[in-house]
Amino acid sequence: MNNNILIIGAGLCGSLLALRMAQRGFEVTLVEKRPDLRKVNQDAGRSINLALSDRGLRGLRLAGVEEQAKKLCIPMNGRMIHDAKGNTFLSPYSGRKDEYINSISRPGLNMLLLDEAEKMPNVQLIFNHACETLDLENASATFKNYSSKEEITISADAIFGTDGAGSAVRKTMYESHKFLFSFSQQWLSHGYKELEIPALPVNETNGENGNYRTYKNALHIWPRGEDMLIALPNLDGSFTVTLFLPYEDSDYCFANLTSPERVHEYFKKEFPDVVEMIPNLAEEFFGNPTGPLGTIKCSPWNAFGKTLLMGDAAHAIVPFYGQGMNASFEDVVVFDEILGPSLPPQREGVDWKTVFLEYEKRRKKDTDAIADLAVDNFHEMKEHTAMEIFQKKRKLETAFEAEFPEQYYSKYALVTFKESISYSEALKRGRAQDKAILNLLDDGKITEEMLLREKLELVKKETEAILHDDAVAFG
Amino acid sequence: MNNNILIIGAGLCGSLLALRMAQRGFEVTLVEKRPDLRKVNQDAGRSINLALSDRGLRGLRLAGVEEQAKKLCIPMNGRMIHDAKGNTFLSPYSGRKDEYINSISRPGLNMLLLDEAEKMPNVQLIFNHACETLDLENASATFKNYSSKEEITISADAIFGTDGAGSAVRKTMYESHKFLFSFSQQWLSHGYKELEIPALPVNETNGENGNYRTYKNALHIWPRGEDMLIALPNLDGSFTVTLFLPYEDSDYCFANLTSPERVHEYFKKEFPDVVEMIPNLAEEFFGNPTGPLGTIKCSPWNAFGKTLLMGDAAHAIVPFYGQGMNASFEDVVVFDEILGPSLPPQREGVDWKTVFLEYEKRRKKDTDAIADLAVDNFHEMKEHTAMEIFQKKRKLETAFEAEFPEQYYSKYALVTFKESISYSEALKRGRAQDKAILNLLDDGKITEEMLLREKLELVKKETEAILHDDAVAFG
Repeated sequence: MNNNILIIGAGLCGSLLALRMAQRGFEVTLVEKRPDLRKVNQDAGRSINLALSDRGLRGLRLAGVEEQAKKLCIPMNGRMIHDAKGNTFLSPYSGRKDEYINSISRPGLNMLLLDEAEKMPNVQLIFNHACETLDLENASATFKNYSSKEEITISADAIFGTDGAGSAVRKTMYESHKFLFSFSQQWLSHGYKELEIPALPVNETNGENGNYRTYKNALHIWPRGEDMLIALPNLDGSFTVTLFLPYEDSDYCFANLTSPERVHEYFKKEFPDVVEMIPNLAEEFFGNPTGPLGTIKCSPWNAFGKTLLMGDAAHAIVPFYGQGMNASFEDVVVFDEILGPSLPPQREGVDWKTVFLEYEKRRKKDTDAIADLAVDNFHEMKEHTAMEIFQKKRKLETAFEAEFPEQYYSKYALVTFKESISYSEALKRGRAQDKAILNLLDDGKITEEMLLREKLELVKKETEAILHDDAVAFG
Repeated sequence: MNNNILIIGAGLCGSLLALRMAQRGFEVTLVEKRPDLRKVNQDAGRSINLALSDRGLRGLRLAGVEEQAKKLCIPMNGRMIHDAKGNTFLSPYSGRKDEYINSISRPGLNMLLLDEAEKMPNVQLIFNHACETLDLENASATFKNYSSKEEITISADAIFGTDGAGSAVRKTMYESHKFLFSFSQQWLSHGYKELEIPALPVNETNGENGNYRTYKNALHIWPRGEDMLIALPNLDGSFTVTLFLPYEDSDYCFANLTSPERVHEYFKKEFPDVVEMIPNLAEEFFGNPTGPLGTIKCSPWNAFGKTLLMGDAAHAIVPFYGQGMNASFEDVVVFDEILGPSLPPQREGVDWKTVFLEYEKRRKKDTDAIADLAVDNFHEMKEHTAMEIFQKKRKLETAFEAEFPEQYYSKYALVTFKESISYSEALKRGRAQDKAILNLLDDGKITEEMLLREKLELVKKETEAILHDDAVAFG
């Protein structure tokens, strides 16, 4: 029957996958090493809100939970840029009114998915069990109960490793000497630290922003060349703030921000408007961990046609495109498409090896692309948002999208809102467009006198020429 | 004094480094896990000859052993392309007469370097000792004697890991949790197998090629789309042949060439002119191991300012540019430059951490570049050498180099013969030139009626435009 599946890791990807596979009729066992987050709060200092956009919503829609998820969402219409003097301006994500991204609570969404999975009669949830050993060739895994220290072994027809960036399943594949495993981990020179802008006290209000201390419906950015601060709103009126800072070799870096005085000095100098919004700045700074920012790629994603990596376990990316969760949910959509039309009762006789190979063939180039785009955006967000030529480009693109909504999509819009094209296509076309506009601006070929339509035609023509030249040279 | 250095790995890079560091006056201990290759032959099935070109020769010159090494060299003036019918044509490596590469015996050159290192009073050679543990923070390593099983511990002011692609030193850095180590291993879908075209029997001769069965002064290539065979001459009249073949999923691949009949069938079909030159084809095929082809990159190269990776340990590359050994020898040249002018007696007070950081800063982008160029060339050698547009490009470039030797260097020539520019510059300029020529040919902008000088001007102008546009868009 081949219908027993074991999913290791009950984070966002594993929970959605469990729910969807159960809807298809498979017998699903979902094992998580940590406690049930619906019962034990455990996310201190971890990324507690995330950006949810069209590709992620498509995954939730597939499993019938989009509407419930939307209740947890706060729309963010653009980037609110804060300069060093405290001035702000809003840079919309798109010239089209209906395109925005959402701030959503990671644990909130994870709980929703676990609740829905648990309702399925063919899903078994097991928490507090860490994967100790994995027999890749026989699709069998041994788990240890954190409290009782007892071990259990679970065999399945197929195993899915959705255990995140530090995946134990992937580590087993890395260490296997029975096949060649290509693997890459790349760390940025920056780490991150989470802080909180709390909601206003119950007796205070901030005009139309209610109990939010600053504008609610935006992703706030304080770009400072090497450093950057961002903030995303939470439903309770607070913002989760993330500081991206070099580990070392900088005037201000994690290595030398070692006293409350230094931290206050740094924030007062670079982020003066933030200092007053974070009452316990130093306390939070020293109380929360510093996390690394890494990209992980690997191949093959499957071992012996029995085990498959999905989500962050297969492709961890840096957070600068807001696509980590979206990419993982899109994994589930692509995988589901490959399984073919779903008609309960349960499917029989799945050829997992063929499905796994087809999935990687279709999906790998796209997760590679979003990984590279996310690193690009790291540089764009901290440096370019402040550079004149990039601001000119952004302004032009926003005008294109507002006036010719069907004819122009910026790289950001292609990646974030255009779920009908793949990440790899978005990367190729988006980079070509960026190159075209920047060079047309630099060469003075886009002039004030031109009509917007003429500018658009010029950009399109130049983009096609770039794509053509690249195709001739690089295939 | 900081002048005791420990070098782990006495291959080509480690031996040259030991010799050069001893010449500078350091106290050098060079430890190798394998037996002394001057006493025990151990290279069966490994790459026994290599391409030595200008960057490698520069390293040998630095240590005063260039002339001795040249006695081991067989010049190769170009690629001798063999088509499926057995026809051949020579494609020169350069339009300049004095530019060629050399075939050299790996063990022969290694022995020369060990002999020279051993002559230095301040070099101690230790064979048969494998590195068991490495204390990165205190620059101390423990080795186990293969025969006696006894352990010795060696401390130093600086440790150099020159222990090759499978480096134990790098593995210790990878497994350290005290710093973030970026690492990548990428395997090609192809493996390799070495075979031998033996010299003619003593009583036979092949005209001006003497006891060589085919043309002596070339690197022979049999490009077949997915598969490829190459052969390099040895001093004794033999050629070392390397077959590059997919592991699986191909009509002929390592997974299905499992009987002598299949091997003969495959060679007769694809390489008919080779079959008669390899008398013991099946025996060799099944007697020799199949090796993987991988690229390894990592960073940082140093740990705690005490240990430094060099050569293949820091940057293993695939063999398709013939630059592996050359890049490792150039490592020694760059490192030596950073140490500054050398005046015996021995240097004092080297600040190793600063030297190590400066070395990686200068060198990393170049070894990344040659790694990428080598993968490019894998595709070019097996596919493009047979495509018309690439042949046209090659012909044009050879004409440029012959008629305007000071004004044009192809990508291959920039990498192989132009040691005054770095690999990363060679990659940037070489790729832009290739893109320019391929597009000018594709667009029909290079016409028969044009003078060669006009064609060159057009290519140069287009190349500069490409470099400019890339700089505007990508910085």
